[in-house]
Amino acid sequence: MNLSHPLRGATMARCRGLLDPALRDAVSVLDPWWGRMAAFALGRSDTDGGPRGEADGFGGSSGDGGKGVRPAIALLSAEAVGAPAESALPGAVAVELVHAFSLAHDDIIDRDELRRHRAALWKAYGVGPALLTGDALLALAVGQLAGRPEAMPYLSAALIELVQGQSADMAFESRPWKGPGEVGIDEYAEMAAGKTGGLLGAAAAAGVALGGAPELADAMWAMGRDLGVAFQIVDDMLGIWGDPRVTGKPIYSDLRRDKKTLPVLAALADGGSAARELSALLAAGATDEESVRHAAHLVEEAGGREKAQALADRYVESALGVIDEHLPDAGELRALCDSLVHRVN
Amino acid sequence: MNLSHPLRGATMARCRGLLDPALRDAVSVLDPWWGRMAAFALGRSDTDGGPRGEADGFGGSSGDGGKGVRPAIALLSAEAVGAPAESALPGAVAVELVHAFSLAHDDIIDRDELRRHRAALWKAYGVGPALLTGDALLALAVGQLAGRPEAMPYLSAALIELVQGQSADMAFESRPWKGPGEVGIDEYAEMAAGKTGGLLGAAAAAGVALGGAPELADAMWAMGRDLGVAFQIVDDMLGIWGDPRVTGKPIYSDLRRDKKTLPVLAALADGGSAARELSALLAAGATDEESVRHAAHLVEEAGGREKAQALADRYVESALGVIDEHLPDAGELRALCDSLVHRVN
Repeated sequence: MNLSHPLRGATMARCRGLLDPALRDAVSVLDPWWGRMAAFALGRSDTDGGPRGEADGFGGSSGDGGKGVRPAIALLSAEAVGAPAESALPGAVAVELVHAFSLAHDDIIDRDELRRHRAALWKAYGVGPALLTGDALLALAVGQLAGRPEAMPYLSAALIELVQGQSADMAFESRPWKGPGEVGIDEYAEMAAGKTGGLLGAAAAAGVALGGAPELADAMWAMGRDLGVAFQIVDDMLGIWGDPRVTGKPIYSDLRRDKKTLPVLAALADGGSAARELSALLAAGATDEESVRHAAHLVEEAGGREKAQALADRYVESALGVIDEHLPDAGELRALCDSLVHRVN
Repeated sequence: MNLSHPLRGATMARCRGLLDPALRDAVSVLDPWWGRMAAFALGRSDTDGGPRGEADGFGGSSGDGGKGVRPAIALLSAEAVGAPAESALPGAVAVELVHAFSLAHDDIIDRDELRRHRAALWKAYGVGPALLTGDALLALAVGQLAGRPEAMPYLSAALIELVQGQSADMAFESRPWKGPGEVGIDEYAEMAAGKTGGLLGAAAAAGVALGGAPELADAMWAMGRDLGVAFQIVDDMLGIWGDPRVTGKPIYSDLRRDKKTLPVLAALADGGSAARELSALLAAGATDEESVRHAAHLVEEAGGREKAQALADRYVESALGVIDEHLPDAGELRALCDSLVHRVN
């Protein structure tokens, strides 16, 4: 998945081996038809219910660097406080279910037709069933931690942050690129910390809490939120400069829909001639192939790519700083978090 | 709201007085635009954000007999075990938020354009925002009880039952009225216990648990599920014989969309000549005004209305039996539960 982090593949495979049976078990309470949709939403099966390609359709070389990362963070966080990874399984299952819930609903909201190289859930089964499957995944996630008050508040906080971040992200789309009402980089960071960071924070916090160190949960929650900002920035970069065959989503789709991604915001903040040209191009509405390609070029010329990577690096350093301070021996967890921000290379 | 239960109005008003500030507080963490949609989903404001008619748009003489019932059950259940009603407020707020969440999503799924005499949330604000507002309401609900392990598992179980019941209800629509694959009355009861009963059960269980009597929570959970079946049957009856000016939803809409409601299932099970004519009419697809009106007439002729009321009575008696056994002095709670099944008279 990431050649610069050879350890990560083994770590992820080990975590998946723990997660998969527990996840399957969690989803098994659903009626068969809904269970199939849930499995599809989790990237575990095709529409016919059969397993997907390698490793039961889970993991594999996908551009979704987030796949399986949240549960792995939960499991490794438990190990980092000296507990068996298994102790964090309810948290790991919960965050993976919430992640699948959010993808299922996001794709309906954004009308995205593709997810993980295939039809989005709503495209495959219809809006109503996809919406309800998302709700089911969320309900099952809550069920995992309902009786665990040391971990449940973090999952709950992540849910609220998730919808707040997603709401902000959606509201940003109708705000201008430049001028009064423009989206500031601080606002972006807050949105990303919620939309992407909350669940990473819940994974880490639930991991240490379930592992017997609830006193570290607040710090790990903050760690996850910083990591989330970095993760989101890298996702934004992949949306512009990533290989669509790897990311599985159409190139420039964020640009086309005026999504306020960090590289573009950073480029516009530059103020130079490329930034001015970019601003004019975006204001005119860059939707055709040539315009968006040129816009992407201008983002890079105005330093948007470089600044985005620098900001992602800063956030990931902050996150790693928390791990180094509280869990100095958490080698695997540290390597995994570090790898998330270097996906683009 | 119900003349045969003069006490109920005072009880509901008292509960609303406790609930409203807590509910407002819970929703206040949302950004203003999303908070307005949440308030709209809760029946507390119009699209312009202003309060609705009487009593801040909450309660009033609506045909939605469920309005405010769930939180009232939570509050009265706490009082029934000798605790102040306030002790159950997090539970009361949670069940009201979950109820609003489920209405917001149900209306998207069913493409219902009207709710509580006005536009459904998705019709007023769009599918994406309505979907996300539903998610926000659910997240806030979970937040209310995240740190309360004596109550949270019941809310969690209700969420799972809710989506399972809703899934079954949706799956029933594409099954035949008669013959192989027909929906049995047992299956209907299971669906209704989940879709409608789970949340009533969670309200009662959370109420006694937060009130300091967690040992009664399982019994109250079962009580609520029975009450829910009765409540759903009465809702089905209102959909056929209720006054649309009171119920706020178009008459016969369930019949038109092949929703497997209890009066129709009971009528078809009768086997007499009216039942056979009804069966043929439904098989041919009764959608025009005259056909559905005639179908409704046949349902009554085949005894569907009578049998539905008898079954609702049986379920409500079972629910009241639990209250009588465990909480013999819970007069207000008992009266409230009893009133739910007599809405139709």
